[in-house]
Amino acid sequence: MPHADTNHQWVLARRPQGLVEADDFERRDAPVPEVGEGEFLVQNLYLSLDPAMRAWVSERGTGYMPPVPIGGLMPGGCVARVLESRHDDFSPGDLVLGMFGWQDYALSDGGGPLRVSKVPDGVPPTLPLSALGLTSLTAYFGLKEIARPQSGETVVVSGAAGATGSVVGQLAKLSGSRTVGIAGGAQKCAWLTGELGFDAAIDYKADNVRARLSELCPDGIDVYWDNVGGEILDAALGRLALHARVVLCGAISVYNSESPAPGPANYLNLLGRRARMEGFLVFDYLDRIDEAMAELLPLVLEGKLRYREDIRDGLDTAPAALRDLFTGAHDGKLMVQIAS
Amino acid sequence: MPHADTNHQWVLARRPQGLVEADDFERRDAPVPEVGEGEFLVQNLYLSLDPAMRAWVSERGTGYMPPVPIGGLMPGGCVARVLESRHDDFSPGDLVLGMFGWQDYALSDGGGPLRVSKVPDGVPPTLPLSALGLTSLTAYFGLKEIARPQSGETVVVSGAAGATGSVVGQLAKLSGSRTVGIAGGAQKCAWLTGELGFDAAIDYKADNVRARLSELCPDGIDVYWDNVGGEILDAALGRLALHARVVLCGAISVYNSESPAPGPANYLNLLGRRARMEGFLVFDYLDRIDEAMAELLPLVLEGKLRYREDIRDGLDTAPAALRDLFTGAHDGKLMVQIAS
Repeated sequence: MPHADTNHQWVLARRPQGLVEADDFERRDAPVPEVGEGEFLVQNLYLSLDPAMRAWVSERGTGYMPPVPIGGLMPGGCVARVLESRHDDFSPGDLVLGMFGWQDYALSDGGGPLRVSKVPDGVPPTLPLSALGLTSLTAYFGLKEIARPQSGETVVVSGAAGATGSVVGQLAKLSGSRTVGIAGGAQKCAWLTGELGFDAAIDYKADNVRARLSELCPDGIDVYWDNVGGEILDAALGRLALHARVVLCGAISVYNSESPAPGPANYLNLLGRRARMEGFLVFDYLDRIDEAMAELLPLVLEGKLRYREDIRDGLDTAPAALRDLFTGAHDGKLMVQIAS
Repeated sequence: MPHADTNHQWVLARRPQGLVEADDFERRDAPVPEVGEGEFLVQNLYLSLDPAMRAWVSERGTGYMPPVPIGGLMPGGCVARVLESRHDDFSPGDLVLGMFGWQDYALSDGGGPLRVSKVPDGVPPTLPLSALGLTSLTAYFGLKEIARPQSGETVVVSGAAGATGSVVGQLAKLSGSRTVGIAGGAQKCAWLTGELGFDAAIDYKADNVRARLSELCPDGIDVYWDNVGGEILDAALGRLALHARVVLCGAISVYNSESPAPGPANYLNLLGRRARMEGFLVFDYLDRIDEAMAELLPLVLEGKLRYREDIRDGLDTAPAALRDLFTGAHDGKLMVQIAS
């Protein structure tokens, strides 16, 4: 298939200080690479923007990926179309999902931090990044393997209007739990209780989170799913039920801070409550994607798992859009359309 | 059996501020109680002194026991002799273990926070408080149910020269793990590596704990058993191996602080390392004491599980001895002999 001569890319220009800024990235033009034996070339269609990207560009990096070097291509999950292939498993025209990065074209051997997978026929091309994306897989495996909410238990989710949190709440609700979401703003909270079926919502920008958790969880929190860290994690730790499970899924409140944030003073409540706090990364479960898809796809198609997409137009909007991810200036799963 | 008319007791005089002081307690004389139907009277022989007592007398209390009220009898685990009984399961002369408190005599119905159990014939009377005590049961069940060290894994224990920590290290070593103990002072460290068979020891009073953990655990910490909290917990969290287990067993460094101590800033490493931090209380496993005894008693009798006892003379030494527990001015499992 024909393609342009130039591969537009966005690289890391400098280490962000605090909140990520558009100027932390810069555009670079590169030639479109040649396809070698065992490789294939894709054209990116949609790029996913995720909170973890802030950690990827920090000096500290993450436990699972080295920091992106200055001048290095920004990594990112994409849905892409295979243009040329010298790889047995991929053919021109295939719609695929992989870590192809902030660029128009990418070369792949099918491996990498996230094994490249094919998007099944009939699945709309944005779904693998939104309702069927890594965020949904995170919710699915984290609930199934770590949190294991039981019918009648109280599940509290922070970042509840986010791509992961909204699915955590809906799946927990489908499993018979009482669900309480924590989100920023009345509009997001109304969406949680009105459309997504959460039993209650706490607006952390307006409410006293500790007081509201006490009111809404009189018997304590059985499962706390943490996407944010900081004060809200500490508040939830102070309200655990016996044998509670705390899933550490992210810490968006601290990703932008340069100095290490203080730890949760209430951690010792894990002792009195014989509770468990466990870190969780979806990357450990990628060999079970098919199992998750078999459960999630019907829920999405039947409208039982609802979601929103916020699609920005053009690769060059990615740096500013990433900033919006942290300021809350987005409405649903944030992605960038690179090509149609 | 004959007994005195007066029951000497020690009660909580005031809430301790910071380090517990002898003056925080006061002596009270009470009549020896009458034995009602279904009850029995014991004479205490040995009283165990434990770090958790500091939490019991704090305003905050613990998740498993309400705070001791001002003027209330100090609780404590004791080995005692049954003097009179109107209870079907206990007879005069029986040696029993129970939460009988800081006093000469106690009335019991066999229940309470710790079910009263009989000390098997032939077991020396201090063993149920030392090598076979709650501290050893804590080590046994915490390793078996929470930490699950595998052969070849690296196990790090803080408070390693303490009654719980020393048993954790020895049992972990017997299961084939590499064991590193953290303790205060060269003498304690020499005891760990010389007599108890720890592979290495870190003297937190003299060494840089973070640097030594890096040296001694090049592949990370698979199991960290925390008896101390604070800085040392944070250092260990910064050095976790993938899928590490952190057992929260106590936090002696914060029991004496009145303001909540800062939480461990490195908690987020649980996420990158997909690790688990879990609170653990031996009280949840007391119905399995027999199983633990069947494993521990032979180890003690064969000298494979070594221990030290620091026995103070007379109930009136208890308040000062409790202080020694926190300053490190003791040598082995601390207890008070109340009667012979």
